[in-house]
Amino acid sequence: MAERHGTPLYVYDGDHLRRRYEQLRAALDPRIDIFYSLKANPNVSVCALFRSLGAGLEVSSLAELVTARRAGVDPDDLIFLGPGKSGEELLACCAEGGMHAVVVESLAELAALDALPEAAGTRAILRVNPTFESHGSRLSMGGKPRQFGIDEEILHGAKAAISALSRVRIIGVHAYLGTRILDAATVVHNTTGVLRVAATLAGELGIPLQTVDIGGGWGVPYFDNESDLDVAATVDGVNRAVSEFLDRYPGTRIVTELGRYLVGWSGTYVLRARYVKQSRGEWFVVADGGTNHHMAAVGIGSFVKRNFPIGSLTRADAPPADVYTVTGPLCTPNDVIAKRVPLPEVRPGDLLGVSRSGAYGPSASPVLFLSHGHPAEVLVLDGVGHLVRSRDTVDDLLRPQHLIPLATF
Amino acid sequence: MAERHGTPLYVYDGDHLRRRYEQLRAALDPRIDIFYSLKANPNVSVCALFRSLGAGLEVSSLAELVTARRAGVDPDDLIFLGPGKSGEELLACCAEGGMHAVVVESLAELAALDALPEAAGTRAILRVNPTFESHGSRLSMGGKPRQFGIDEEILHGAKAAISALSRVRIIGVHAYLGTRILDAATVVHNTTGVLRVAATLAGELGIPLQTVDIGGGWGVPYFDNESDLDVAATVDGVNRAVSEFLDRYPGTRIVTELGRYLVGWSGTYVLRARYVKQSRGEWFVVADGGTNHHMAAVGIGSFVKRNFPIGSLTRADAPPADVYTVTGPLCTPNDVIAKRVPLPEVRPGDLLGVSRSGAYGPSASPVLFLSHGHPAEVLVLDGVGHLVRSRDTVDDLLRPQHLIPLATF
Repeated sequence: MAERHGTPLYVYDGDHLRRRYEQLRAALDPRIDIFYSLKANPNVSVCALFRSLGAGLEVSSLAELVTARRAGVDPDDLIFLGPGKSGEELLACCAEGGMHAVVVESLAELAALDALPEAAGTRAILRVNPTFESHGSRLSMGGKPRQFGIDEEILHGAKAAISALSRVRIIGVHAYLGTRILDAATVVHNTTGVLRVAATLAGELGIPLQTVDIGGGWGVPYFDNESDLDVAATVDGVNRAVSEFLDRYPGTRIVTELGRYLVGWSGTYVLRARYVKQSRGEWFVVADGGTNHHMAAVGIGSFVKRNFPIGSLTRADAPPADVYTVTGPLCTPNDVIAKRVPLPEVRPGDLLGVSRSGAYGPSASPVLFLSHGHPAEVLVLDGVGHLVRSRDTVDDLLRPQHLIPLATF
Repeated sequence: MAERHGTPLYVYDGDHLRRRYEQLRAALDPRIDIFYSLKANPNVSVCALFRSLGAGLEVSSLAELVTARRAGVDPDDLIFLGPGKSGEELLACCAEGGMHAVVVESLAELAALDALPEAAGTRAILRVNPTFESHGSRLSMGGKPRQFGIDEEILHGAKAAISALSRVRIIGVHAYLGTRILDAATVVHNTTGVLRVAATLAGELGIPLQTVDIGGGWGVPYFDNESDLDVAATVDGVNRAVSEFLDRYPGTRIVTELGRYLVGWSGTYVLRARYVKQSRGEWFVVADGGTNHHMAAVGIGSFVKRNFPIGSLTRADAPPADVYTVTGPLCTPNDVIAKRVPLPEVRPGDLLGVSRSGAYGPSASPVLFLSHGHPAEVLVLDGVGHLVRSRDTVDDLLRPQHLIPLATF
């Protein structure tokens, strides 16, 4: 792949991704629908692969919505989330063909949607900011003041506002409690909590529970001190909670949104070493890609730099020969992909791979920094690599810019 | 501008930028050449404006090099820096028309450049990683093991390697000690140190001091606890150090590289409030742009979130009415532009401006996150706003992606 498409390069193992999805699908209660969250990796072919496996899609912008449609999503397997939807996005949610539901994040947004003539018959799900807290997630989203969703306390008094809707039809409840959760008990706790809140609100507000979106947030372990999510325990607990809920509310469609958990493991960021140099007793590998394509490797949000798993692809079977700091080509000391990691000997031209990098890769990174541009992306299916995103060229980077005429000094 | 070009939008005040450059130019010793660092803001019209004022340009990638050429740079006012230059980039540095000098960052890179037949006559400057340390910068780059430059200790013994060059001609020395420096004494200390190291190395290695690049790193105060650089004291100290140096080495071209200092103050990130909502007693403004366009506002590198200066553009003269947290449209709690800031009343549709945002704005941010794309950029000159970067459209975002055929489940 590196020879054919050049480096730096993201490679997604579609066969691994397929197995991961199918294993989860087989284990989860069939009454739970899995929706893939495009924000984790919005490549249209990755989305189409999930679609081909039967997943629904969860989008958060107009471009993600268009991506989902190009990926061939069935409208009834599509939902739109996000705390700051534009007028154009709200309109697109109402468009002919439609979608399963818009997730509304404030009463003001609900009113704005209902005011659109195009919204007649549009289905909406109320996103709740619940009072109960979630522990064990890396970024908690419940219990606190937040930009997301509608405070549970506000919804308790919102019956009149909901009854006054003239076009939009509320069909259920959604809550999302946090991300990067690696503890099964936390996922189960959140699921139980969301289902309890949904039942309470449905009773109070007189809304049907056609759909309950229980969120997701299942994590991938990146660092030495992290353990993988116990999937058996997670699935077991979620299935039990959902089953008890469906005993009381038969026919409710249960949706779980998963992004990172589904794609995170399947991606490798492939770099080529350009220079290998020593500075004051430490070895540095200066590679052709860096944190401009893989910002998560900077270790944002933690006080101490922790390393993503990284290895030599050229000398995969060789034992560690030295300790190296792997940097990218940027002119900032923060451009460190891996700090002081043991690796087999690294020579200029060698390929290195940062694994578990399928989620929040280039789309969550400053790809325009120093005008290096977006790397190529390859999706491997049945052993064949398909280019699913072309590398930015210099022309691609400069095309949107306009040179205005200026008198020279 | 917001009406005409939409929001979110970056507006650069070219008249302010021009004054800032001209004031500095008038104060600095005329024997010091100012080179604008494209990495701070690579827009071609911003570069052309600096060019029209007489500045040189410092680039760090092939696309930045092409940008500089389109901006009309004189080859002798162009240098290329960066720890991980590609073969293609090295070749471009040798190309017909050429440039003032390539800054080489390792002896291996110097050898690789010298091995190119095209390199005959190419001028190079040695980037030194000096032994002396710089204090007072936010990201120190001297004294420690680093991916940048060649350790001073290594250069002390590099006479043979340099004498053996057959094509490349060394014309001077460069060092860059740190970024975001807000203390005049630190800039002066660094300048003096670089000039001292340059003199020592020139004597030891028998290289001419045709050019010495003294770096830059002058900062812009963003946060409450930061004071502006004392420019008079900085210029005074730098002028004195350079003057003493030029007494001993008359005719040496002195270059200082400045990016953030020149453009930082001139930019405003303009947002429109989409929703204004209360959650558990706190006010949230959900705006149409967020940290996807202005990652620096997240406050990376600091343990406590600190706010960039932000104000209401719609109610600029009104007194603060409440305390607001301003977020973007992303689905992450990290998407906070300003946390708990006093603002005049904010209503949906109001414009807000984040000031001092001319450097390391969209080009240093994850503009593809959630597929929102790059914002528009406007450069104001003589009171007239010129669109210098078009907003990304959905088509722009999806064009480089390829949908591969997949059998549906």
